Amino acid sequence: MTVRILVTGGTFDKEYDELRGTLDFEHTHVPEMLRLGRCLLDVSVETLMMIDSLEMTAERRAKVVERCRECAETQIVVTHGTDTMVETARALASGVTGKTVVLTGAMVPYAFGSSDGLFNLGSALSFVQTLPHGVYVAMNGQCFTWDNVKKNRDAGVFEPL
Amino acid sequence: MTVRILVTGGTFDKEYDELRGTLDFEHTHVPEMLRLGRCLLDVSVETLMMIDSLEMTAERRAKVVERCRECAETQIVVTHGTDTMVETARALASGVTGKTVVLTGAMVPYAFGSSDGLFNLGSALSFVQTLPHGVYVAMNGQCFTWDNVKKNRDAGVFEPL
Amino acid sequence: MTVRILVTGGTFDKEYDELRGTLDFEHTHVPEMLRLGRCLLDVSVETLMMIDSLEMTAERRAKVVERCRECAETQIVVTHGTDTMVETARALASGVTGKTVVLTGAMVPYAFGSSDGLFNLGSALSFVQTLPHGVYVAMNGQCFTWDNVKKNRDAGVFEPL
Amino acid sequence: MTVRILVTGGTFDKEYDELRGTLDFEHTHVPEMLRLGRCLLDVSVETLMMIDSLEMTAERRAKVVERCRECAETQIVVTHGTDTMVETARALASGVTGKTVVLTGAMVPYAFGSSDGLFNLGSALSFVQTLPHGVYVAMNGQCFTWDNVKKNRDAGVFEPL
Repeated sequence: MTVRILVTGGTFDKEYDELRGTLDFEHTHVPEMLRLGRCLLDVSVETLMMIDSLEMTAERRAKVVERCRECAETQIVVTHGTDTMVETARALASGVTGKTVVLTGAMVPYAFGSSDGLFNLGSALSFVQTLPHGVYVAMNGQCFTWDNVKKNRDAGVFEPL
Repeated sequence: MTVRILVTGGTFDKEYDELRGTLDFEHTHVPEMLRLGRCLLDVSVETLMMIDSLEMTAERRAKVVERCRECAETQIVVTHGTDTMVETARALASGVTGKTVVLTGAMVPYAFGSSDGLFNLGSALSFVQTLPHGVYVAMNGQCFTWDNVKKNRDAGVFEPL
Repeated sequence: MTVRILVTGGTFDKEYDELRGTLDFEHTHVPEMLRLGRCLLDVSVETLMMIDSLEMTAERRAKVVERCRECAETQIVVTHGTDTMVETARALASGVTGKTVVLTGAMVPYAFGSSDGLFNLGSALSFVQTLPHGVYVAMNGQCFTWDNVKKNRDAGVFEPL
Repeated sequence: MTVRILVTGGTFDKEYDELRGTLDFEHTHVPEMLRLGRCLLDVSVETLMMIDSLEMTAERRAKVVERCRECAETQIVVTHGTDTMVETARALASGVTGKTVVLTGAMVPYAFGSSDGLFNLGSALSFVQTLPHGVYVAMNGQCFTWDNVKKNRDAGVFEPL
């Protein structure tokens, strides 16, 4: 049984562009993170898009829903920027049934030494194997159902409603 | 609801002793790892011992079992060296009931840049919240019940029997 | 004999702001870098400003020159953003005499795992101890006199004229 | 003008052997460190041996001296374990003339997050470009002539005699 990881970008994958001195996206760090975690779980990684979650439009969100619905796997982790993660969770809840979908991300880019990304990825891959069908947000050791979570932007944390 | 983390040492916590040029134990890195993971789960960390798992005697193992049995929490993560993790899992299975206990560790010390420790800690803290009562080994994205796991020392991985 | 380190910010000291998702300045990383390098040289670190070098005005530049001129030390390292490092070197060359001043910086923030900052700091602190009085730019293992260096912004490297 | 880097192993290059749980040597990290430092200096790296400096015999030391004498470059950095670095410096001083040779190393392996290796490498590559012919030990921001340095093993630092 394989876990599908759908990559959409987000803080997770932000990189420092040396020439321009800005944060940018190049390629996903998820395969490198799986190697670092010596992940022995059977996973298949697919990059859907590489965007800041503030650029997550209805159209792009529909694409995430579609891939979750269509892929063969019933256990799916979606990496996503934190700012609109809850909105995408809601869209997934209306569009996907009979599967366990866990959204995760990071408060600090993986490329930074101080990132929470590896911890969150290990966490999401574990929740997805054990939780019943449904849509969840897994961040910083906690797991919320899609309909009982919001991002507290002042504190930079996810909370129940 | 709090998760208890019982620290016993293991590769997880090995450090480089600059003066002697050897690997050694000083203090546990678990609190630092929880900070890095920006862990918002309510956890309480308790150091039981700081040993290489090859030094895990029957007496020390009994102490781990006793603490799991006596502590108020029903969800417990035990950090442990990988070489004798399965033996301790077996002892916990006979000695602890009505609780979920997840053993985890690392193939590479956390103090090394290339450690799987943070990934495994995120994973263990997630499995412990969702799995039914019992004793488990969570390593590198996988989770095994105590009676269906062995360490393949040649490959450096945990496998089902 | 002490080396004075004057901090002005630059890529060296950029940090990731978790709440805003942007690069920002908080405090200098130089003392932490000296600890990591286990620096045994007698240095005194002074933060003059914490700015992107694109914000380096004539007024601010005059302040850097003034501090180099006034401080007791004759060996001075100035950490500086790379974009206008050469202009500040020129200003120092006209304003400071009888001292060795070495400007250095980083192509990638120190807070990123992949930073060249520690290498450059070790390099600058060595050049400043051995070079004759004058103003220099030390980046990525090379050292240039202030009047024979330019930043090639397309390649992200410093070159002789 | 090229700088020759002669690699002999030492703490610099110690790695963690995941299968055996011990510190070991595999390959040198020097090329990776030069990439991290974005080193633009023309260097040529040559691995002479990969040993703990406690295993540095008279015969092996003679090989280091021979390579320093024979290679085309007049600026040479030797990476070396710290325990017998001073002895090798002495051998180089009797055997090599007309060249600048700088020995360097690390108190903590580069593969550890907390290594001083990158700082020391940047430092040694700078001293070697600017110091007159002779043999030197460059560690932790300081540079000593071969005949005025000893390792204080209790403190883990190099000191003048």
